[in-house]
Amino acid sequence: MKWSQTHLYTIKEVPSDAEIPSHRLLVRGGYLKKLAPGIHSYGPLLLRSIRKFEQIVREEIEREGGAEILMPMVQPKELWDESGRWNAMGDIMQRLKNHKGHEFCLGATHEEVITDYVRHDVKSYRDLPVILFQVQTKFRDEIRPRFGLMRGREFIMKDAYSFDRDKEAALVSYKKMHSAYSKIFNRLGVEFRVVRADSGDIGGDLSEEFHLLADYGEDLLLVAEQGDFAANVEVCPAIDAEEKVDSSELLPVEEFETKGLKKISTLAKSLDVAESELVKSLYLSAAGPDDSDLKAICVLLRGDDELNPIKLKKQLDLKFEPRPLHEKEVKEVTGAWPGSCGPVGLTIPIYADNGIRHMKNMVVGANKDAYHLRNVNFDRDFKVTEFADLRMAHAGDKNPDGEGVLREVRGIEVGHIFYLGTKYSSTMNGKYLDDEGAEHLMEMGCYGVGVTRSVQAVIESSHDKDGIIWPLSVAPFAVHICLLDPSDEKASGLAQEIYDGLHANGFDCLLDDREERPGPKFKDADLLGMPLRINIGARGLKNNEIELVPRATGEMSKVATEQALEKTLEWLRSQS
Amino acid sequence: MKWSQTHLYTIKEVPSDAEIPSHRLLVRGGYLKKLAPGIHSYGPLLLRSIRKFEQIVREEIEREGGAEILMPMVQPKELWDESGRWNAMGDIMQRLKNHKGHEFCLGATHEEVITDYVRHDVKSYRDLPVILFQVQTKFRDEIRPRFGLMRGREFIMKDAYSFDRDKEAALVSYKKMHSAYSKIFNRLGVEFRVVRADSGDIGGDLSEEFHLLADYGEDLLLVAEQGDFAANVEVCPAIDAEEKVDSSELLPVEEFETKGLKKISTLAKSLDVAESELVKSLYLSAAGPDDSDLKAICVLLRGDDELNPIKLKKQLDLKFEPRPLHEKEVKEVTGAWPGSCGPVGLTIPIYADNGIRHMKNMVVGANKDAYHLRNVNFDRDFKVTEFADLRMAHAGDKNPDGEGVLREVRGIEVGHIFYLGTKYSSTMNGKYLDDEGAEHLMEMGCYGVGVTRSVQAVIESSHDKDGIIWPLSVAPFAVHICLLDPSDEKASGLAQEIYDGLHANGFDCLLDDREERPGPKFKDADLLGMPLRINIGARGLKNNEIELVPRATGEMSKVATEQALEKTLEWLRSQS
Repeated sequence: MKWSQTHLYTIKEVPSDAEIPSHRLLVRGGYLKKLAPGIHSYGPLLLRSIRKFEQIVREEIEREGGAEILMPMVQPKELWDESGRWNAMGDIMQRLKNHKGHEFCLGATHEEVITDYVRHDVKSYRDLPVILFQVQTKFRDEIRPRFGLMRGREFIMKDAYSFDRDKEAALVSYKKMHSAYSKIFNRLGVEFRVVRADSGDIGGDLSEEFHLLADYGEDLLLVAEQGDFAANVEVCPAIDAEEKVDSSELLPVEEFETKGLKKISTLAKSLDVAESELVKSLYLSAAGPDDSDLKAICVLLRGDDELNPIKLKKQLDLKFEPRPLHEKEVKEVTGAWPGSCGPVGLTIPIYADNGIRHMKNMVVGANKDAYHLRNVNFDRDFKVTEFADLRMAHAGDKNPDGEGVLREVRGIEVGHIFYLGTKYSSTMNGKYLDDEGAEHLMEMGCYGVGVTRSVQAVIESSHDKDGIIWPLSVAPFAVHICLLDPSDEKASGLAQEIYDGLHANGFDCLLDDREERPGPKFKDADLLGMPLRINIGARGLKNNEIELVPRATGEMSKVATEQALEKTLEWLRSQS
Repeated sequence: MKWSQTHLYTIKEVPSDAEIPSHRLLVRGGYLKKLAPGIHSYGPLLLRSIRKFEQIVREEIEREGGAEILMPMVQPKELWDESGRWNAMGDIMQRLKNHKGHEFCLGATHEEVITDYVRHDVKSYRDLPVILFQVQTKFRDEIRPRFGLMRGREFIMKDAYSFDRDKEAALVSYKKMHSAYSKIFNRLGVEFRVVRADSGDIGGDLSEEFHLLADYGEDLLLVAEQGDFAANVEVCPAIDAEEKVDSSELLPVEEFETKGLKKISTLAKSLDVAESELVKSLYLSAAGPDDSDLKAICVLLRGDDELNPIKLKKQLDLKFEPRPLHEKEVKEVTGAWPGSCGPVGLTIPIYADNGIRHMKNMVVGANKDAYHLRNVNFDRDFKVTEFADLRMAHAGDKNPDGEGVLREVRGIEVGHIFYLGTKYSSTMNGKYLDDEGAEHLMEMGCYGVGVTRSVQAVIESSHDKDGIIWPLSVAPFAVHICLLDPSDEKASGLAQEIYDGLHANGFDCLLDDREERPGPKFKDADLLGMPLRINIGARGLKNNEIELVPRATGEMSKVATEQALEKTLEWLRSQS
């Protein structure tokens, strides 16, 4: 592609709503242009990166036996009623009515459509397994779109779905996709981790996320300092690094005044103990939107710990995350305003985090405004309904899989694989006949790659102050030629020769043939970030030389013109 | 691709809503599956054809200097308010509201977005020309979706847009796209015609359509029996093949009773004259939706001619097509019920088609129920506001560009190119600075190819009773191997060898390796329609032979196994 013959531009101003480096670079390089919040146009360069990544995804999934199809983005409500998700999807799903009043949604995901696609044609076990995938623009009405393509409303996704005879076969498909995903992100050329994840509303009981590691990643991950363990904080088991024992005698309960000491921090200060030695009580409602009663529960945690609502939801086997009670509801349930509440005397279920199991002679709210109790003990003073792992894990917790402790890193979720079981086949009648003619439900899996998000995540993990540093795998162009004297025949002739030579050898090239000074050309080249820059100018040609500058190192080497193409190809081949 | 390892299927039942052959074949071959009216999933085979056609489109537009981008499908109302088209687009545009109540549409077309995309970065004449295009899934809320991909709600389109300094430069871009389109449809390998067209709501004053010719085409085209002239009936000039002269004397007007003779056909019969010798008067309203008064007009045509509402709209320079008056309105305007009305004594404007200009002593309604007048003459008895070409052209009319007459053919519109002028740049402030720093509006063009429609149109013009006959250009696979004895090692080994050899030579191949009898395999191969079928079976291999069967001719030739790959490649190369 020649700069003068297409619509490329760069801008100097950093847009105010671009909060992270990759977003700023995409906008400054003309890769991305905002049309509305979370809705963008992709420029010629970005589209080339996207297409290259799509091709990597396609190849690896086809290698595992997946076949590409394309499903509709506009989907009828009736189908989502079958699976029961029309309501469950909430506001994130964009709904619309056509002029006849029929209801549709913009498919934020395609489990329903693919189950419908397959259920009519899969008749017998001989038709299984099936792995189908698509690369498609999707729309989600994100409440707070931000970070460019990271959390956009409109974005490109690869979604794949597997159908199998039984769980064993379904896990074979799951492993195939796991392997495809590992290859995909390996080929991208940036650091990634596979982490245990929550399956959320998609369903199923096995799910892993693929994360590119980056400082501004939206997700907090916990990874073992030794070994392979990695998990999203949402699901990471929380185990104290050291098992604690308290062998104190049980003392008699005492009430004491704690006026103005509503927070754990001020209470700890006043009592001169660590927050971790105090117990905090939280009050939540386990009621769903259709429940008429409150279903209040109490959760006890160490003073310095945080509740993990996903763990609590699973522990209680709920469809929705429990919501915190309003202050007035707390008062009704405990008799006191928040800050003076505790477990003693409650009639609601009490769930306690494993982290306080060993504690004796605890300090808790007295359920009487401005009073606390000390020397409160399990069983003697109140009953715990259940002890469980309910807290957020954090750095320093024990590695659940082996030796050592966990550390925290931030990641960008670029892939997610789920074993779904029969969640959709059971509600949507996705059946097949076995070799004896008996009907069975198909076992499903679903597998997503955030295509546009991955491309931006690459920039987030590979850039410097001057611009993007593309890996060769998804660079819009392998080479960026800065033709410094476009009107010099010798220079432009050589540029054209290298340009043609690269294409003949299967590499693409951006030729900056603008009438422009070298400074701005180099700045633009650094900003746009192609892996290798070639400077060709009249001055160098007097010495029969051109310059090669790999973007990542910036280390310039001079090369004789006769060797220019050969050395360029050599460098490129060393990268792939 | 191997049949046993993917999700392919064929069905015998013809779906009841598939009215034309191409639609029936797409469904029967598992190419296409309906999800909702006008909304379909594309199977693996169809997607391959679509991708191949997209690539043809891409290559030809890039060759003319176009750069590919991707714009959002969901577009904010504000942008459409700028161009004034939010209301003008009507029900065909699918509207939606997000959870915050902001209004959006699903972009049925992208003039607004592209003008916004370009206006911020094009600063000077040096940045022009710009040609940008995208390949995108679009949605239109068609009132009556039908014919599969021909008139679907969700479909893939390539849309391109050009921006130029002035009209002269814009017409250069227009010609480039004309040339690209001709190459695109030439490469498809089916018969097409370029026809003059109406520019509709898109705007501009130059527009041509590209049609594939097919019996069930939705559009009626008029093409010269000699020469290049071709036009959509919507805009085709209507010129009588022979100029008529009537040298009769003007006779005095006579009123006569015509009870029960309300139609031209019954009146002609009763008077024993041809319908073409009578004059019919139509009554319409030229009022727009915001007009409070009726703006009634009268149109006079030959008795056997049909009004062309697009011509009338243009003649009157209206934004909307005039609507026929209701019977009561006709009565109010003329004094008589329809069937007895005529031009004499009217106070509203009267437009007359050129086809009646020569007439004398005409028979027209008397504006008195159950009466007509004879011997009515122009000027003497009533004044015509304007004579114009207002009728539908038809077979036998004069070729407007030269010798001979026109004939009627049916076409499927697969491409449409428009010179737009400044319609969008003027409302949306799309300006650039010339070399003296003066501001000018950019001149635009827009250019569409119906990608999915084209692929189906190919089938519509290339099939037989057994199935599809793909041209090599967009066939899902170049070759279809029917492996008749998958368990025979020699047969399956040879099939694999040819399969690999084809891929190594850049051709793709579908290998039917199912355990299935030859009959159904051949039937499926004919239905799916790959250009070349190869039969490999144990019986043939005893004679060291395989069979090649080109789909189009069905003429089988036996080839020695050693020559199998070579002969196959030879045949394929002869096709491209």
